[in-house]
Amino acid sequence: MKIALAQLNYHIGNFESNENKVREAIEKAKALGADLVVFAELAVSGYPPRDFLEFDDFIKRCMQSVEKAAKSCRGIAAIIGGPLVNPEVKGKDLFNTAFFLEEGKIKAQVNKTLLPNYDIFDEYRYFEPNNEYKIIEFKEKKIALTICEDLWNIGDDLLYRGNPMDDLLPFKPDLMINIAASPFHYEQAIDRKAVLKANVEKYKLPLFYVNHVGAQTELLFDGGSLAFNKKGEIVGELAYFDEDLQIFNVDEMHQLPEINQQQLPGKIELIHDALVMGIKNYFGKLNLKKAILGLSGGIDSAVTLVLAERALGKENVRAILMPSKFSSDHSIKDAEDLAKNLHIQYDIIPIEPGTAQVNEMLKTHFENLPFGIAEENIQARMRGLILMALSNKFGYILLNTSNKSEAAVGYGTLYGDMNGGLSVLGDVYKTEVFELARFINKDAEVIPENTIIKPPSAELRPDQKDSDSLPDYAILDKVLYEYIENRQGPKELIEMGFDGAVVNHTLHLVNTNEYKRYQTPPILRVSRKAFGMGRRMPIVAKYLARD
Amino acid sequence: MKIALAQLNYHIGNFESNENKVREAIEKAKALGADLVVFAELAVSGYPPRDFLEFDDFIKRCMQSVEKAAKSCRGIAAIIGGPLVNPEVKGKDLFNTAFFLEEGKIKAQVNKTLLPNYDIFDEYRYFEPNNEYKIIEFKEKKIALTICEDLWNIGDDLLYRGNPMDDLLPFKPDLMINIAASPFHYEQAIDRKAVLKANVEKYKLPLFYVNHVGAQTELLFDGGSLAFNKKGEIVGELAYFDEDLQIFNVDEMHQLPEINQQQLPGKIELIHDALVMGIKNYFGKLNLKKAILGLSGGIDSAVTLVLAERALGKENVRAILMPSKFSSDHSIKDAEDLAKNLHIQYDIIPIEPGTAQVNEMLKTHFENLPFGIAEENIQARMRGLILMALSNKFGYILLNTSNKSEAAVGYGTLYGDMNGGLSVLGDVYKTEVFELARFINKDAEVIPENTIIKPPSAELRPDQKDSDSLPDYAILDKVLYEYIENRQGPKELIEMGFDGAVVNHTLHLVNTNEYKRYQTPPILRVSRKAFGMGRRMPIVAKYLARD
Repeated sequence: MKIALAQLNYHIGNFESNENKVREAIEKAKALGADLVVFAELAVSGYPPRDFLEFDDFIKRCMQSVEKAAKSCRGIAAIIGGPLVNPEVKGKDLFNTAFFLEEGKIKAQVNKTLLPNYDIFDEYRYFEPNNEYKIIEFKEKKIALTICEDLWNIGDDLLYRGNPMDDLLPFKPDLMINIAASPFHYEQAIDRKAVLKANVEKYKLPLFYVNHVGAQTELLFDGGSLAFNKKGEIVGELAYFDEDLQIFNVDEMHQLPEINQQQLPGKIELIHDALVMGIKNYFGKLNLKKAILGLSGGIDSAVTLVLAERALGKENVRAILMPSKFSSDHSIKDAEDLAKNLHIQYDIIPIEPGTAQVNEMLKTHFENLPFGIAEENIQARMRGLILMALSNKFGYILLNTSNKSEAAVGYGTLYGDMNGGLSVLGDVYKTEVFELARFINKDAEVIPENTIIKPPSAELRPDQKDSDSLPDYAILDKVLYEYIENRQGPKELIEMGFDGAVVNHTLHLVNTNEYKRYQTPPILRVSRKAFGMGRRMPIVAKYLARD
Repeated sequence: MKIALAQLNYHIGNFESNENKVREAIEKAKALGADLVVFAELAVSGYPPRDFLEFDDFIKRCMQSVEKAAKSCRGIAAIIGGPLVNPEVKGKDLFNTAFFLEEGKIKAQVNKTLLPNYDIFDEYRYFEPNNEYKIIEFKEKKIALTICEDLWNIGDDLLYRGNPMDDLLPFKPDLMINIAASPFHYEQAIDRKAVLKANVEKYKLPLFYVNHVGAQTELLFDGGSLAFNKKGEIVGELAYFDEDLQIFNVDEMHQLPEINQQQLPGKIELIHDALVMGIKNYFGKLNLKKAILGLSGGIDSAVTLVLAERALGKENVRAILMPSKFSSDHSIKDAEDLAKNLHIQYDIIPIEPGTAQVNEMLKTHFENLPFGIAEENIQARMRGLILMALSNKFGYILLNTSNKSEAAVGYGTLYGDMNGGLSVLGDVYKTEVFELARFINKDAEVIPENTIIKPPSAELRPDQKDSDSLPDYAILDKVLYEYIENRQGPKELIEMGFDGAVVNHTLHLVNTNEYKRYQTPPILRVSRKAFGMGRRMPIVAKYLARD
């Protein structure tokens, strides 16, 4: 029996596009001689469909897509994920289901048992867990079919009481198939291989695993679908960050040698590739082409510009330089040098006439109070206003250039530099932004060296430096990582050796600035814990804040 | 046995404040002769604590609060809600627990069985469901203790397979106690009474029910805690929108007559009271006093201003009138009349100098293209910039004045009139805003009649009317209500009699403007389905959108 794994880039709710991709993959797999082609979890809707799942009309459209896929299955079978209405009165209205399609019909359905409900996952919001187990029989093989999380309750930290493979083992399956929607973060590919290998070693069965690829707004899927022989060796590995279809002979799995796995790039290159895909798919799925951003001469906008240029092409990116009277000469030169290196259209629009006018309009209302945060923010908001005006005039999408360190401590101006349709670097700490810049420059100087070596500054008042109000990023980022990714509390952080005052100040800043993050653009997720849908915090709270 | 119900306004993560409130209520209940005082679900943390529950330090602080409450229990017992660490390796790390406190100690714990995970609820994200049942014995009474949702799996649409009261009935309980965190919407008090009554009628036991009161950012709790005799009659009802403590003699419950329930005000008055509480608690819990808003002469900012004045006092609210060359004379007069009626400080800051300057700065870049959406939005963003500048200068919180109809169809300018720390009317449809205005004016003309009767306009171009680009609000709001609150699809809406073109246009607008709502301020929730944490939609999707 030959199995094709179809790793595709779906688009949430775009039934026409998803149906076409599925049909073409069925035809391609059949042409390659496959008996069975396997698609990902919730492939017909795209993942995650979120509250669209609460609309009957949406569920009907999904079911029509499953039926269309079934009709394409002549001389080949398929497994595809989609939502299924729960026929019982009790429990949630839907199951998260793998449909087995054969001879033009839906021949069997297997429902997901373990429903992830943490971080970015909300599956218990929609789905009833499966509580009956069955095997799929096809071409004299017994297939233990599971869905994503069903294989993840293994190891030391068990989130669930049960384990569906334990319930399927008595049926004496010949192989395992797992259809998944496993979002990328920079450690995920390694975690995933380890978890799947642990399953193979525990159940001693070959395993075929199919993932999504592509971006759904903030969530990135890296693909990397896998085939394991029953010894736990990887015998097939699909592309990363790209669509792919590969075919395997089940009967030869035992004699297939372990392959040389694709050399997974290091963390920074992975982040780079994921962000480029994230920008590309954001625009592509919105059917938009052109991006705009504010180029300050600093490192965040420089890295964002390079990533945008790589995702969209130099002809589709426009940079706006908006110097103020506090901008240093090198800022404008560094920004211009970068735009020229990339052959990107750029304009210089000094903000002074606008900010001077606004300050004049507010002069009497400001009651002769000294220059302060209000005047600083007027500059950032004037820049935001100019960028949005150009965006509205020409249909550009504004790319946000804030990094994760700034987002964490609220070092940014709401309705100013925090504007944008998409945040490219909002899950990348400042120290990682520097590493990205070095990676981008590895073969030639794309980003001017001066942009990388000068001390970071918002340039909103004379001689301002980030380090005037924040701990050094080398320290700050470590504290933030332990607090945000690892959820360490103040006591644990101090025990790790961080300075108590730095810890308290940092945690205070993170927690009091939740209101700013609530209004930020969606952030491309590259870490285990990104701001956005996967981190849900109260705003008007008083924990490690406002003391 | 005498039971006191303590209905308090907690503050998430503010352990000191919550502990003080609990201790004072224990003392008060004891002074009144109570044997047992009952607090709400997750009282020690405030509800919902959201991802703070993932921090060990936060859980320890919660447990310390429970222990402090226990120490206050001398000569009186208490029931209080808090998170409890799950001692088992399998399953989620926590339970949502009711602690029974007696003689200075935690004497028993009952965990929540049914964990709501829909709309604004995320309890399965944190908690393992209970699977062992026990009764609380106290003063020769057997208490069937449950937590909120545990009593809600009753009626026709059953979300869960089990029902904890069915498992407690074999213990032959004498009474039921339910501790809750049941957020307000304008139909909730009636729903709540019906559900609780159905339980009493099914299990034939008296019931004591304790709810939260007060606002936690967007979530509002209306209180209205209840006592039922075993016939299903309400014999006690605590205050709405206010803290309260009342005491009941369990042994006399059967002879207590049904009370005259508080006359629940109509929908619009309920919304009014809830919004006033929402504003008041938002500022109070942030330890802030002063609000600012843009007053246009239109109805949304007029109603927002009145609500803010009622919540914060006239001395704490400031209105800014920002006419442009497109503002009609009556707009300025109507706005001034309202500010004068309310004795509110107001300033007039014409935006023309600022917008003219920005247009001049962009002139060559705009390439002589005709006046359009870009120039309209420059006006809205100039106003947003001015309001935020004053907010930054003087520490005001900017109140957002957008209504739910606008938020639904994207009729608003991001980083302009969509700015604010809190959206007051974002869950109130335009037609309901008119009803609120009429309600406010019921005894005297507070809001100028002209503000109510003139056709709504954004006044961003000559003679603009909302009806130029949107269906009449009378129709639009009905379509939106059926789509958003009732989740009807296009087919169902057309079958209801709505015009097909209006339906398709409206749904298209709602779904393509998700990116705008993603960046809006938190919205005070007054309906069954508000934008924000209770409605989670993909952004880059293509369902009923972009056709």
